[in-house]
Amino acid sequence: MARQSLQAVGDATFARCERVSTELLALTYGSFVRQLMQDYEEVEDVNRQLDSTGYNIGVRLVEDLLAKSRVGPCANLKETAETIAKVGVKMYLGAGASVGNWSADEKSFGVIFEENPLAEFVELPEEWGGLWYSNVMCGVIRGGLEMVNMKVECRFVKDRLKGDDVNEIRVSLHEILMEQPPKGED
Amino acid sequence: MARQSLQAVGDATFARCERVSTELLALTYGSFVRQLMQDYEEVEDVNRQLDSTGYNIGVRLVEDLLAKSRVGPCANLKETAETIAKVGVKMYLGAGASVGNWSADEKSFGVIFEENPLAEFVELPEEWGGLWYSNVMCGVIRGGLEMVNMKVECRFVKDRLKGDDVNEIRVSLHEILMEQPPKGED
Repeated sequence: MARQSLQAVGDATFARCERVSTELLALTYGSFVRQLMQDYEEVEDVNRQLDSTGYNIGVRLVEDLLAKSRVGPCANLKETAETIAKVGVKMYLGAGASVGNWSADEKSFGVIFEENPLAEFVELPEEWGGLWYSNVMCGVIRGGLEMVNMKVECRFVKDRLKGDDVNEIRVSLHEILMEQPPKGED
Repeated sequence: MARQSLQAVGDATFARCERVSTELLALTYGSFVRQLMQDYEEVEDVNRQLDSTGYNIGVRLVEDLLAKSRVGPCANLKETAETIAKVGVKMYLGAGASVGNWSADEKSFGVIFEENPLAEFVELPEEWGGLWYSNVMCGVIRGGLEMVNMKVECRFVKDRLKGDDVNEIRVSLHEILMEQPPKGED
């Protein structure tokens, strides 16, 4: 699908979905992050836990995304990238995102966005400077793509909470997984 | 304000608010509850932690509610009850709720609702039968009301996750707090 039309799909699907207030999501997510900050001493462990939580969410969300947006299979990584930015981020966060900063080998790209509803009320305390507050999003992308047979690495490289001008998640394709044959009845 | 008009306020404010997908909130909240279930051995402690998290959210949300919905001060507990059900629940969860089951002394009532976006994908494992999964909502109401000088007790008495026909949160007024004079500069 062309870029323009994926944008339209994202907008239309977002308009059709059941929705709740952004504030409630932001405060609920904030409570979750705060709980992890109490549970783990190392900021790296919090980042990892957020990513792993996101993975489990992504595995669930991808079916929802495919069913509601009715986007077909992506022909190549460029189309996948645009679908994440224009359909996924829009559908779930109501925010606009774009794709850029492709690597020379065309196997990695950035999902770039300015508004981040998850971080709406947040200021990072200085001692948590190593926290990628919205790291759950990396896990969501990773989990979602794994369900469509793409093994990727995802990580934040820019975060406005850290003073960057935009937010950027880098997505790097590692492997196209073989389709698993359906499992037998028992 | 009359009942009908509070309903209209809730609907209009919900339509005006920035929103995100219900699925994302449900899965994020689910991750939070699961984390608490790992952290605490006793289900009562999880219920308490959810309530206390909700309290902190409610303290933040009430300002947002008053600013966005522009409802004025409530004249009595009946109006407060209707505002919670028709404006609060609608604005943040996009769900309809009603008020009922008033006690004889008119100091306690039920907020009754069928749809609960927080619990959308949830089945309670049997060993967690004592969990009030959406207990965060009790805390939100308690925290929000405390900011407008009402000390209440809130608890779930019915939950569709437990097989009840509806969800019901009982709210009991304990005390009208005296307005605190504004604190001095230091």
